[in-house]
Amino acid sequence: MTSKEMAKAAKQASRLMATKSSEQKNQALQAIAKELAANADQIFAANAEDLRLAAEQGLDAPALKRLRFDQAKLAEVIAGIESLIKLPDPIGQTLSATELDQGLELYKVSCPIGVIGVVFESRPDALVQISCLCLKSGNAALLKGGSEALRSNRVLAQCISRAADRAGMPEHWLQLLESREEVGEMLKLDEYIDLIVPRGSNEFVRHIKQNSNIAVLGHADGICHVYIDAAADLNMALQISIDAKCQYVAVCNAAEKLLLHKDIAAEFLKMLLPEMELRGVELRGCEKTQSMAKVVPATDADWKTEYLDYVLTIKIVESLDEAVEHINRYGSGHTDAIVSEDEKAAAAFMAQVDGADLFWNCSTRFSDGFRFGLGAEVGISTNKIHARGPVGLEGLCIYKWLLKGKGQIVADYAEGRKKFSHKKIMCEVL
Amino acid sequence: MTSKEMAKAAKQASRLMATKSSEQKNQALQAIAKELAANADQIFAANAEDLRLAAEQGLDAPALKRLRFDQAKLAEVIAGIESLIKLPDPIGQTLSATELDQGLELYKVSCPIGVIGVVFESRPDALVQISCLCLKSGNAALLKGGSEALRSNRVLAQCISRAADRAGMPEHWLQLLESREEVGEMLKLDEYIDLIVPRGSNEFVRHIKQNSNIAVLGHADGICHVYIDAAADLNMALQISIDAKCQYVAVCNAAEKLLLHKDIAAEFLKMLLPEMELRGVELRGCEKTQSMAKVVPATDADWKTEYLDYVLTIKIVESLDEAVEHINRYGSGHTDAIVSEDEKAAAAFMAQVDGADLFWNCSTRFSDGFRFGLGAEVGISTNKIHARGPVGLEGLCIYKWLLKGKGQIVADYAEGRKKFSHKKIMCEVL
Repeated sequence: MTSKEMAKAAKQASRLMATKSSEQKNQALQAIAKELAANADQIFAANAEDLRLAAEQGLDAPALKRLRFDQAKLAEVIAGIESLIKLPDPIGQTLSATELDQGLELYKVSCPIGVIGVVFESRPDALVQISCLCLKSGNAALLKGGSEALRSNRVLAQCISRAADRAGMPEHWLQLLESREEVGEMLKLDEYIDLIVPRGSNEFVRHIKQNSNIAVLGHADGICHVYIDAAADLNMALQISIDAKCQYVAVCNAAEKLLLHKDIAAEFLKMLLPEMELRGVELRGCEKTQSMAKVVPATDADWKTEYLDYVLTIKIVESLDEAVEHINRYGSGHTDAIVSEDEKAAAAFMAQVDGADLFWNCSTRFSDGFRFGLGAEVGISTNKIHARGPVGLEGLCIYKWLLKGKGQIVADYAEGRKKFSHKKIMCEVL
Repeated sequence: MTSKEMAKAAKQASRLMATKSSEQKNQALQAIAKELAANADQIFAANAEDLRLAAEQGLDAPALKRLRFDQAKLAEVIAGIESLIKLPDPIGQTLSATELDQGLELYKVSCPIGVIGVVFESRPDALVQISCLCLKSGNAALLKGGSEALRSNRVLAQCISRAADRAGMPEHWLQLLESREEVGEMLKLDEYIDLIVPRGSNEFVRHIKQNSNIAVLGHADGICHVYIDAAADLNMALQISIDAKCQYVAVCNAAEKLLLHKDIAAEFLKMLLPEMELRGVELRGCEKTQSMAKVVPATDADWKTEYLDYVLTIKIVESLDEAVEHINRYGSGHTDAIVSEDEKAAAAFMAQVDGADLFWNCSTRFSDGFRFGLGAEVGISTNKIHARGPVGLEGLCIYKWLLKGKGQIVADYAEGRKKFSHKKIMCEVL
């Protein structure tokens, strides 16, 4: 099938997926977990072949680690499926109900979005996770994984399709794209695909956002700031700075910039420098920082760069306002934190910074669907519409308006024979 | 200023708009209502000039009617502002609250989207309405009205800006674009503009959707269907069909197609034909319809066309399934209705048709923000994300995640020294 035919088939499948009950979907998830466990050897063999070829092609150690799908990963994805089964069905929830007039009742009910296109890099476990999230939320999925994981992805997708098929899910609800060209074509199929979820590097996500008319859920950059206010508890600020920068540097919610209020800058730098040196963090700084500490001079590019590495750039600011302006100018609207004992300063920071996640006296690293208690994470979004920050299953849902009448017509209301009551009601739809 | 400079200024203004209290925003709305009333003569004079030039250029009567802004329209927009003031502030609402751990509280709080670009056609009252919706929801607005309404729009925008300015709203929160070229440029400014709301013809909305990377809230087509099921009350079906087609033909929620179950087709056509003839409705039909009644043969294009006129195309279907398939294939996902006494048929229709508004035993014409009780209508959306169907103020809002801690770091949770509780809590943010 061509990409267009696949997308068209996905659209048809999505109509049927939307009608599946919670029980049917959970049975399918259960069947998938069993099928994956039963086919472990075949999965590991395909993955071993992917790993062998990737090593031959000189993939670096972190990339090989992401590509590996072993017993531990299998156990992890199966545990993920088990917990997904336990989550409430996001579909079919009555979000509001209004009696427009006697016998004319309006319900806003959650439903699947339709066809989700997901493009992810080399982790085969992402395929399992995203397929199951789409299934639980009643969506059809078109998936494109990293080419290094081709063999692993094929076997995993086959296991998932086979199990879901036996459990009554419609044909073509899950399809695998295998070439880069197919992704290019997918980005144009706005007639059939309703949402694209890209997972991967910032260049990659930016490329997708700029080359598609389809809505994209995700984030390109995670340029996260920690601002240490004049009224900060400096010991707390130090622990938060270390955690935000160093606890895991290769992720989008790690801090990349540190903004220091001028009143505490000198004292805090004295505390910070040895800790950062100990952890091998390269410090870069604005002119004022350079005058107080031995740091690499920061360039304008530094403020806009997500390092995902042991690098931290420091700016000394005159005021909270300057910190807010700097973040709104250079940040990515992902996660920014203030450390302060002053509640008013924290409130101003959280109100004025335009971002998905604004944190007060805690590490930026908490910005994560699991830590937020969302149960399952679709991704982290820096969009300004639909879903923002860590996105759970509800990011794959939208709603329908259902209006139940007894023959009402608008002419009666337009001509004054009847009037709307618009009373909120509490009752189940249909 | 260039369009880019205007958009940049709007972005800066939007940061300040986001921090305005409900009281400040309502005071500004009150001031706008007063200013409009105080400047009625100047507004009417500008509008008279627009009308004179439009008549010279040969605008047709319906277009001239839309362009007219008289005492009645002024009273209407002022009443609209008064009712907008009474609506609850959509901003600053705590949508959910979770204790992640002791002293680590997460709040999901509604906030403005940022900068809204609105492109509308010749109605000057739309300028007032959309400016006030943006103000109430704390957004900055870049507006482009129809060129026929240029003088009216300038005076209205000046009144609104002047009043809002005196009431403490930031400079540049409301700006008027005046040329078509500026709209073209606006569509490219995804760095500054967060959402485009186009109001106007379907070609126009389609053009905007296809020429911008910015999210668009709206609908191109309103190809609404009424399906008369085998188990329909035919008298009810007749009244609904008349209302849906004829109560106001020039609007997106008017029915354009009628699908008849084969079992009731002959009998229903006998009832329908004289009523439609009486109202001057041209009937077109599929081959089966042609064999039963005197109708114009329908072409494939008919199923995809929104007439906005006294034209109705009829198809006879074998089953509910065929009706659903037809609607999913040719419809626009706007509003579709089933007339049936069979609750199961209605439930299947509402579950399987992929659309914003699915109605049972009532007219498609109810698909409207005011009739739905949303208070103020931003527009009607056929999007699959963010907002669908009639959209109230909440369509101009998104949310932030605010996390309040006491120095918590992720290392403690990652290394097992602390555990997440993820307890839902009920309390006000900050």
